[in-house]
Amino acid sequence: MANKVKAVLIGGTGYGGAEILRRLLFHPNVEVIRITSVDNIGKKVGDVHLNLAGLSDLTFQQLAPSEAVAGADVTFLAMPHKTTAQVVMEILSSGTRIVDLSGDFRLRDPAAYAKYYGVPHPAPQHLTDGTFVYGMPELNREAIRKARYVASPGCFATTIALGVMPLAKGGKLSGAIHTVAATGSSGSGANPQITTHHPLRASNLRTYKPLEHQHIPEILQTLRNAGAAQDLSLEFVPVSAPLPRGIFATSFVDVPASTTQEELDALWKQTYGKEPFIRIIGGGRQPEVVGVSGSNYVEVGFTLGPVTGDTRRVVCFSTLDNLVKGGAGQAIQSFNVMMGFDERTTLAEPGLWP
Amino acid sequence: MANKVKAVLIGGTGYGGAEILRRLLFHPNVEVIRITSVDNIGKKVGDVHLNLAGLSDLTFQQLAPSEAVAGADVTFLAMPHKTTAQVVMEILSSGTRIVDLSGDFRLRDPAAYAKYYGVPHPAPQHLTDGTFVYGMPELNREAIRKARYVASPGCFATTIALGVMPLAKGGKLSGAIHTVAATGSSGSGANPQITTHHPLRASNLRTYKPLEHQHIPEILQTLRNAGAAQDLSLEFVPVSAPLPRGIFATSFVDVPASTTQEELDALWKQTYGKEPFIRIIGGGRQPEVVGVSGSNYVEVGFTLGPVTGDTRRVVCFSTLDNLVKGGAGQAIQSFNVMMGFDERTTLAEPGLWP
Amino acid sequence: MANKVKAVLIGGTGYGGAEILRRLLFHPNVEVIRITSVDNIGKKVGDVHLNLAGLSDLTFQQLAPSEAVAGADVTFLAMPHKTTAQVVMEILSSGTRIVDLSGDFRLRDPAAYAKYYGVPHPAPQHLTDGTFVYGMPELNREAIRKARYVASPGCFATTIALGVMPLAKGGKLSGAIHTVAATGSSGSGANPQITTHHPLRASNLRTYKPLEHQHIPEILQTLRNAGAAQDLSLEFVPVSAPLPRGIFATSFVDVPASTTQEELDALWKQTYGKEPFIRIIGGGRQPEVVGVSGSNYVEVGFTLGPVTGDTRRVVCFSTLDNLVKGGAGQAIQSFNVMMGFDERTTLAEPGLWP
Amino acid sequence: MANKVKAVLIGGTGYGGAEILRRLLFHPNVEVIRITSVDNIGKKVGDVHLNLAGLSDLTFQQLAPSEAVAGADVTFLAMPHKTTAQVVMEILSSGTRIVDLSGDFRLRDPAAYAKYYGVPHPAPQHLTDGTFVYGMPELNREAIRKARYVASPGCFATTIALGVMPLAKGGKLSGAIHTVAATGSSGSGANPQITTHHPLRASNLRTYKPLEHQHIPEILQTLRNAGAAQDLSLEFVPVSAPLPRGIFATSFVDVPASTTQEELDALWKQTYGKEPFIRIIGGGRQPEVVGVSGSNYVEVGFTLGPVTGDTRRVVCFSTLDNLVKGGAGQAIQSFNVMMGFDERTTLAEPGLWP
Repeated sequence: MANKVKAVLIGGTGYGGAEILRRLLFHPNVEVIRITSVDNIGKKVGDVHLNLAGLSDLTFQQLAPSEAVAGADVTFLAMPHKTTAQVVMEILSSGTRIVDLSGDFRLRDPAAYAKYYGVPHPAPQHLTDGTFVYGMPELNREAIRKARYVASPGCFATTIALGVMPLAKGGKLSGAIHTVAATGSSGSGANPQITTHHPLRASNLRTYKPLEHQHIPEILQTLRNAGAAQDLSLEFVPVSAPLPRGIFATSFVDVPASTTQEELDALWKQTYGKEPFIRIIGGGRQPEVVGVSGSNYVEVGFTLGPVTGDTRRVVCFSTLDNLVKGGAGQAIQSFNVMMGFDERTTLAEPGLWP
Repeated sequence: MANKVKAVLIGGTGYGGAEILRRLLFHPNVEVIRITSVDNIGKKVGDVHLNLAGLSDLTFQQLAPSEAVAGADVTFLAMPHKTTAQVVMEILSSGTRIVDLSGDFRLRDPAAYAKYYGVPHPAPQHLTDGTFVYGMPELNREAIRKARYVASPGCFATTIALGVMPLAKGGKLSGAIHTVAATGSSGSGANPQITTHHPLRASNLRTYKPLEHQHIPEILQTLRNAGAAQDLSLEFVPVSAPLPRGIFATSFVDVPASTTQEELDALWKQTYGKEPFIRIIGGGRQPEVVGVSGSNYVEVGFTLGPVTGDTRRVVCFSTLDNLVKGGAGQAIQSFNVMMGFDERTTLAEPGLWP
Repeated sequence: MANKVKAVLIGGTGYGGAEILRRLLFHPNVEVIRITSVDNIGKKVGDVHLNLAGLSDLTFQQLAPSEAVAGADVTFLAMPHKTTAQVVMEILSSGTRIVDLSGDFRLRDPAAYAKYYGVPHPAPQHLTDGTFVYGMPELNREAIRKARYVASPGCFATTIALGVMPLAKGGKLSGAIHTVAATGSSGSGANPQITTHHPLRASNLRTYKPLEHQHIPEILQTLRNAGAAQDLSLEFVPVSAPLPRGIFATSFVDVPASTTQEELDALWKQTYGKEPFIRIIGGGRQPEVVGVSGSNYVEVGFTLGPVTGDTRRVVCFSTLDNLVKGGAGQAIQSFNVMMGFDERTTLAEPGLWP
Repeated sequence: MANKVKAVLIGGTGYGGAEILRRLLFHPNVEVIRITSVDNIGKKVGDVHLNLAGLSDLTFQQLAPSEAVAGADVTFLAMPHKTTAQVVMEILSSGTRIVDLSGDFRLRDPAAYAKYYGVPHPAPQHLTDGTFVYGMPELNREAIRKARYVASPGCFATTIALGVMPLAKGGKLSGAIHTVAATGSSGSGANPQITTHHPLRASNLRTYKPLEHQHIPEILQTLRNAGAAQDLSLEFVPVSAPLPRGIFATSFVDVPASTTQEELDALWKQTYGKEPFIRIIGGGRQPEVVGVSGSNYVEVGFTLGPVTGDTRRVVCFSTLDNLVKGGAGQAIQSFNVMMGFDERTTLAEPGLWP
């Protein structure tokens, strides 16, 4: 295995880490050499992530970041925000490439970080100087190809941004977007809490952080980079839904009154026609979670509403698996791009049916 | 039981009929004298609705409408639209009061009916002449008190209208509302279909009839009657969620930029402070399904967003049980009002926890 | 309300306490005067059990047991085992009647308690002297009528014992019973833990404490009291299932080879024909959870297998709601019996459909 | 792709067919050349099995069996029983290898088939003459290697037989086994029916065909072939559980009183130590569904109970995914063995976590 890329995973006991391992352990060009964590130290990965039992002899290790990355060609970070930034500062000089799943290096604006994450960023210069490339291949493929440090997008951010991105690329995105996105419970992580307590969650629908979710500035940044007007704003309501995996996003957007179905069909096709993981849904169907759950694929679609005055309403729908394309899968997709591998490696397989 | 109100249920094998029976069989002022249906003829109600086993000796009968209502003081109709209108025309002259759970007599505008239900209304004069009172006590309590014929509101229509009604009553509702509402699977009825097939439904989130749902004109009519501007419009996206019962609605509304939290708190309190089934949620929490599921209660709340130009955004949330306050419960609430009974009779009990 | 029974609830923030309140707050002969707990002190009950919002002004209080029971005609205990026994010893002399939902006073054999609960009983004399009557009305109705202290049965214990009790009463129960019973997640209580973490629980089936569950001696004691042979043994495997409420029990029993369907039909009818909450299922159907969930009802049924040698196999099925007939509902049923009220008061209502 | 095995799938629109495609489309040694069905004719596979959208241009074709198998090196049959036997008789002479997922060619005893499947077998000679090898590699690997026709085992049959097989191989299996196995809803197939109607299924646990399930003779045949005594009998209760995928089986078995933990540990290790898809669970944990769902892996474990007289009780637990190792996955495993491919090809990937 001498020629394989040597990968380290820091923060391996959460669901993001589990999904990274599910994919990397079967990546033909990768050898996972080390996994660190703050709990379950000494246990085999398959004793914590039961699906991996027997598939790896690796154990969770407790190591300082600088020790953790010894010999690593690439390091995947699957930790909470703030902790991540501190680890990054300790390993930036080590020479390892980094793919970070946290929210710490996605934004360019330290003020937005401070406002939405509730703490000042510990290394704001690494936001403003573009140390990290935002790891959304559909937006930034060429930059990722040249990057050494990738900040992988958030789950809601990916779903919502991909859902309306064709309008941004087509110069039709401005003003206020109104979005409701419902998510599965795995998005809340591996630690039990009252919002994921089965007796309540299984029978519930509720919102949290309405209009205040930390993915709002990330989505706006992404869409502006894709071509949206600077006056773009986003009112986003996240909803907790009673299923383990998947996000369903509905976004209401105003476009010029003259906009036609054919025009939008062309925009969607132009934006995503060659994308390996985006499925444009049409012909009377709209995106749904069950078709993408467990996989790196995304379903996108839209419906065109009536004209009011000089605007016409478009409702954009998008679905994906929050842990895969909304998390570990997209991180590996960017890693593949960065390393020059086939972008689909270990990611091409479909999800379950049903 | 001579002094009890004699009730007939036409269309007793669906979930609406089941919920009517769950309540009416324990109503101290009601005797259910007959239940008709088109299937399960001859079976006891408890053999079809298993929760009612042993609680009634009534069986499902196959009867012409005119025979069905013999001796009825009140007739509850729990049938599909269009069929309902035909039955109503056969029983209007019989003298029975009617509480209709279908969509056939909710609208005043035959054109809206034809557009959204896909068929011309068979008795349009009964829409325009107000034969039926719209059975939403929070809007029409006095009219219901004097009514003999009640058209009980739809599940989405109730959720969404109650969620934003304080703004209508306060003269602050105009322009476009954008709403996403997710619903449980019981809303699709008792007959198995692919959209309620467990292996798919349990892992899915999807939309259906986006911008085209038949409750759109019903909601607009309700809100205009409550004081909304005539230019009110509604873009509504229904979402199917993987739980049996409950609706969670999110509605984005623009209000004047000067609107304050205190003003809206006062509006909500003024609108609902004396309502027996509406719970105003605040103090950092927002409405959720699990608190109202199985009951006739409704949770309403809102969050106030930023000012943009001369408008400010309000996001209204509302939850209820689609079969109770969104169906049979509200029908019985109107029945109670119409008969002069305590409005809460058989409806005051809370839902399950958890 | 001078003539109402004054009730106190000690341990009100769990699911057992919530279900007690859901029922007692609507009990026409009861006034709940006080609720204590160790958490959520000062909060209204409806702020913790959201279904009860607006239905009571009571708050959770932190009080010593002796203060808690001041003025109480009856005290409901909804606390963990061991803690309960200590509280009981502090209040036994106060004059209050007690209905205990814990496992602390169900067994007569202190050694069995020590073995299955893992700690010596702090007041073993109250086990052996029968201070508490075992509160299963189908077994002990007359004793409950005369009791002042009731130990309400466990959820699995009720399900399994009621499922095979007719065989015990008919003198046909001896040897080994093999039972598998699957339960909903509310049985694990209101505190989040890894076994009720939604992402895992929603997709899982697993066992816990196989052959070692603490309800084993309780079931054997019940069945021997009902007439089973002293050689009766029970091998019981509990299974965690992905639904919030309900238990489904399957019990394999050997009966004499000569046993016939008619004989067993007669036994079931004789045992349960007059029981207000037991539904004998037959005619090709078997018990299921959905018919009893949310209610105090129980479904029981059996199927008769082939003869092998001198025995014939009977498979007994039973279902109930673990929080109602398996918990708070049965506790109130016994309370009703003890107080001379109609046994069905606040318990007669059916569960939800669906 | 000239050197790839050309595969045909007959009966491609069910869940078994979907899972076959999910795997075969990514099998490096296979080219799927044709898919037939009786419905969805002309549609792309990804329009029916949404997870496969964009992954294949194949469409469902309506063809006579003889046409369907033209050019096929191997034909996978994913059809109902009885229909399957008729198709087999039409294609047996064509030269194609066959892997059949139905129950039609698993049994050797036509009388057992007639009894449990409710119809006489249309080609009983193909049962008695061993035309088909029973495709359970853990039992029959060498025979499968030499076979041209494989009858792939049933989902319950695989779960239960693998759970107790070490006892059979160790000569410790005789007398009566008592088994309860709970299954996910995908086991009922892709066609909606009342037992898989989401509003009911999501809140339910129930049995069906207790003591009469058609997998009973299949399990007995398997276990006798593995070394069980001829007096072996099985009382099996299937339970429907509210999750899409997975089976959890509990089997009570009597072994000689002298049996020890060490002896059984050794038996399990000897039986399964080299099996690529069997995970022996121990160390205080027992098998659970969530670790194997979505994959071809099986978890097996046991607990040893007390001695009674000259016997000791063992309770065996086993879990798998009903559509993978209990269906399509095992079929492909046998196909791999038959063709001389690495047995794990397209099957080694773990399931989802969570």
